[in-house]
Amino acid sequence: MSSSTRASKRQKPNDADKTFQLIYWPSIPGRGEHIRLAFEATGTPYTDVSNKTDAGVNAVLSQISDKNSGDEHNPPPLAPPVLKHGDDVTISQTPNILLYLGPKLGLVPDVNEDPVGLYHVNALTLTALDGLSNEPHDVHHPIASSAYYEDQKPEAAKKAEDYRNVRLPKFLEYFERVLAGPASQGGEYLYGGKLSYADLVLFQTLDGLSFAFPKRVGKLRGSGKYEKVFALYERVKGLDKVKAYLESDRRLEYSMGIYRHYPELDEEGE
Amino acid sequence: MSSSTRASKRQKPNDADKTFQLIYWPSIPGRGEHIRLAFEATGTPYTDVSNKTDAGVNAVLSQISDKNSGDEHNPPPLAPPVLKHGDDVTISQTPNILLYLGPKLGLVPDVNEDPVGLYHVNALTLTALDGLSNEPHDVHHPIASSAYYEDQKPEAAKKAEDYRNVRLPKFLEYFERVLAGPASQGGEYLYGGKLSYADLVLFQTLDGLSFAFPKRVGKLRGSGKYEKVFALYERVKGLDKVKAYLESDRRLEYSMGIYRHYPELDEEGE
Repeated sequence: MSSSTRASKRQKPNDADKTFQLIYWPSIPGRGEHIRLAFEATGTPYTDVSNKTDAGVNAVLSQISDKNSGDEHNPPPLAPPVLKHGDDVTISQTPNILLYLGPKLGLVPDVNEDPVGLYHVNALTLTALDGLSNEPHDVHHPIASSAYYEDQKPEAAKKAEDYRNVRLPKFLEYFERVLAGPASQGGEYLYGGKLSYADLVLFQTLDGLSFAFPKRVGKLRGSGKYEKVFALYERVKGLDKVKAYLESDRRLEYSMGIYRHYPELDEEGE
Repeated sequence: MSSSTRASKRQKPNDADKTFQLIYWPSIPGRGEHIRLAFEATGTPYTDVSNKTDAGVNAVLSQISDKNSGDEHNPPPLAPPVLKHGDDVTISQTPNILLYLGPKLGLVPDVNEDPVGLYHVNALTLTALDGLSNEPHDVHHPIASSAYYEDQKPEAAKKAEDYRNVRLPKFLEYFERVLAGPASQGGEYLYGGKLSYADLVLFQTLDGLSFAFPKRVGKLRGSGKYEKVFALYERVKGLDKVKAYLESDRRLEYSMGIYRHYPELDEEGE
């Protein structure tokens, strides 16, 4: 802590003094990646606590312990990611953390110019997380999230077939339509002609899906039906700060998190 | 419409002039019920379009049609519920609609007194919807939401066992802990000592679960481990406006929606 930070701590703290800490499982991108991307795309300083401090995984475990009842101002979180903002704010749930950060990081429309914009960004985010993050997780864990994939392989194979052929195309079609619609203001970004955190979430989910289902995503991409969606993917990937982040060692590799590559779940559909 | 309302329409419209319309599948409570309860618990006038107007199910179908690209200010919704506020605002996604309505209906803490409160209410709502609404739906549709339950019965039986014995107790324990924690300010309501829409969502999910899994919920309730959770359930159920609503013909019966009673999925756990 610098002496200037310490000095300002003695005064009434304001938002600018507060540090951002992300608390998430170490070593995997997971749901924490949506929060990392919001910070990285805007050049906002943050601490990735379990990856970058000695606290490690204990930072997560103490948050989600059944001994944690929260404090006077903050209920306990059920699961990570958790955001700590300064000493007094603890926020959980991925889309909720993004909602909290959105106005602070300039990743939602200005509330004075467009008071409804942040609700649209939130809806688009919730929809992307539902269909392109939660459902792909359930593909390899259709029966029990606490059991091994190896113990639910036949069910996973069935669910993967439905996901590849029904659900994934449904969500891609939806986002293509959003980008073709007038509220996108040109189709470069999902809403209002400007980058919002919904674009970062769509980028990240498409990136994870490309890892998990390379054949299927490649085929859908090659169909030409979702040109605006994949153009947005490339557009976000090419933003200076995002590009620098993706090339840095702060970007973690996919492994056994939400997006897993099991070749047997990625057979091509008819 | 009264003449004073009509007169004010000629002036620049403001929020107070705008009508609330809920667009959701007719005849089932479903996810629309969370929105209905927010209106009913606060005595806020609204129109339940598909149940109370000639538009019927077409009101939903036109919103979610793949021909709908939204308008200049509103992206299209993927799925209902959809809220229309006046002529110019269209909002989708259940927790997002509640977030939009919360400050307007007095169902979140005053943003000037507690600027972080609505994020906590949102997190609690997202968690209740995840574990007590989305997961129970997936219990009877573990493989494909577009296929019949009858075509995925063995998988549903397995998922139901995990839900009854692992997931449902996990979420009840969590909400019991939230109510025991200091941020609840006394444990009567989830956050800040006052009714918020998170309490309405928890009430509705517990009510649906009691319909779907009467034996299992009865046993968990009887265990005495979740006294604060079930006391909150009764507290919300007994609020004057909620009570009057539940006794009215506006409250729809559970049938083939999110919460379904299949006795074979409700065997008691060990």
